[in-house]
Amino acid sequence: MHIALDAMGGDHGPEELIAGALLAAQQADVHVSLVGDEVLLQSHLETAAPDSHIASRIHIVHSSQVVEMKDNPVDAIRRKKDSSIMVAFGLVAAGNADAVVSAGNSGATLAAAVRKLGRIKGVSRPGIASFFPTQKQPVVIMDIGANVECRPQHLVQFAVMASAFSRLHGTERPRVGLLTIGEESGKGNHLVKETYDLLNACSLNFIGNVEGRDVYKGDVDVIVCDGFVGNICLKISEGLVDSATQMLRDEIVRSWRYKLGYLLAKPAFRAFKRRVDYSEYGGAPLLGVDGTGIVCHGKSNAVTIKNAILEAAKMVKKNVNQEILNGIAAESAVVQLEV
Amino acid sequence: MHIALDAMGGDHGPEELIAGALLAAQQADVHVSLVGDEVLLQSHLETAAPDSHIASRIHIVHSSQVVEMKDNPVDAIRRKKDSSIMVAFGLVAAGNADAVVSAGNSGATLAAAVRKLGRIKGVSRPGIASFFPTQKQPVVIMDIGANVECRPQHLVQFAVMASAFSRLHGTERPRVGLLTIGEESGKGNHLVKETYDLLNACSLNFIGNVEGRDVYKGDVDVIVCDGFVGNICLKISEGLVDSATQMLRDEIVRSWRYKLGYLLAKPAFRAFKRRVDYSEYGGAPLLGVDGTGIVCHGKSNAVTIKNAILEAAKMVKKNVNQEILNGIAAESAVVQLEV
Repeated sequence: MHIALDAMGGDHGPEELIAGALLAAQQADVHVSLVGDEVLLQSHLETAAPDSHIASRIHIVHSSQVVEMKDNPVDAIRRKKDSSIMVAFGLVAAGNADAVVSAGNSGATLAAAVRKLGRIKGVSRPGIASFFPTQKQPVVIMDIGANVECRPQHLVQFAVMASAFSRLHGTERPRVGLLTIGEESGKGNHLVKETYDLLNACSLNFIGNVEGRDVYKGDVDVIVCDGFVGNICLKISEGLVDSATQMLRDEIVRSWRYKLGYLLAKPAFRAFKRRVDYSEYGGAPLLGVDGTGIVCHGKSNAVTIKNAILEAAKMVKKNVNQEILNGIAAESAVVQLEV
Repeated sequence: MHIALDAMGGDHGPEELIAGALLAAQQADVHVSLVGDEVLLQSHLETAAPDSHIASRIHIVHSSQVVEMKDNPVDAIRRKKDSSIMVAFGLVAAGNADAVVSAGNSGATLAAAVRKLGRIKGVSRPGIASFFPTQKQPVVIMDIGANVECRPQHLVQFAVMASAFSRLHGTERPRVGLLTIGEESGKGNHLVKETYDLLNACSLNFIGNVEGRDVYKGDVDVIVCDGFVGNICLKISEGLVDSATQMLRDEIVRSWRYKLGYLLAKPAFRAFKRRVDYSEYGGAPLLGVDGTGIVCHGKSNAVTIKNAILEAAKMVKKNVNQEILNGIAAESAVVQLEV
């Protein structure tokens, strides 16, 4: 198993990414190609000083350009053909790697994947899925930002792809919910109303509409929505957790008694934080691409990167794309019912 | 000042609503008409046994029907002409009350308001706004669910109306943000991109795009979005707070040490909860209706109802609708620029 890691993406620079690659190579039988500036990566790798057994599994592949977070994705991959993300997917296209992990610009990662590897047959719009923590097991939400304008058939295909990804994680018959603003079938915007009928007609385990307040309950395994709504759900949740943490901290520092109480209960807070922390999950998979790629949050640490590398290896090994191909074919008649 | 309270709405039944009315009448020079089943309300009022001074400010107005939470709003107000919410707005239309407060079906409350009172001149789509707590002062978000399909001109008018409401609460020149999925002007769906240009052309204090993660930071006073997105933001936030609270509780009960720590720090948690609790805010105002109405959460307690009654009185006294009328007129040329 060979994973190409975009070693130039992410907010923390190559050190953290390389540390993640080393952790992965330590934990599993996996080779990692670090893609980026050779001199820079070589020097960081020497500083990290892995033992020879691990070092033999880490390779460096040079690329001269970097796609920045602020770059327009489609533009960037057209202009920067030798960027780390393009070179990484090039390795997969050439059969020299099995999958790509990147903590860089997520739009550019998806665009590069589609450019180099194409789409799975029958998939209209590849997208990005993500686990959200809940009170029970995590829920997969798709799309979280790649497709801002969607048609009903796209949402049905997201449901097929996210269900395949959910099965990969052991859910036998994932319950699929449609994100909207009321529980009844008639509630929502045009997109949701039309999608409801299609999901009802297909063979997935569609359980109906779910509201925003249901997302974190854990009574559904897959939630579909367009990428505009999905991205806002993701970002508002991250922002709320950050702000609430800050506000709680403001209150606790007001008195020694509160601080002492917090210290006593700290392990409980730590355990709670682990449960809700995205970094425990293995990043966000690109689904619908004819190959395997995972995007991580820009601020991912070494553990997140390690988890993402192992997740990518799992997706390849279990051949989730074959499941997606079969699922898309199975629902192709339903998708054509779109008004 | 005379407020009509829909005494049949809300999850807790008339007791909680009547308690809220009594608190309001105690705290301010305000009369409250309880609208609903006369016999039922009379018996609850007798149980509450307010002193004669307060009792003289509480009136009962009979209505024979109730709009249920699950009712379709437009349908319900057409069929249930003698429902408490229709009778309440009828009191305002007849000049027998100044405003309405309801913890019932929010869609039906808006529909009844528009039916009985009409729209403010120039307003295309009345909607519902709401305060969201942030790290700094609260932010007003509009629309939070009344208008699921919007055009750019509607969002511009939401910005005008929510700015007037924000000024009512002391913000001199409210900073207006457009909710989307990237900071740059080119990011978002068609609706957002077109709205961006209109907001840029109008005289509001438009500061550009805001992302989901910025909502709770408090660096903006007004955020506009369509009602589908706004409702999901509201509900996912409520759900996340509920689920996170539950998950934290699960961790804390694991050990006596954690429980002791929690007890010591409890006042800090209480203060935090007050800061983020919607019940401290005075409900969600209907904006764009030619009259005054406030919708409260179904699970509102007496304090929320009291706050909503006082908020409604403030909106009437400060004539926020005149501000909206002027604002809408001032931006009418911009709204017509819509592609």
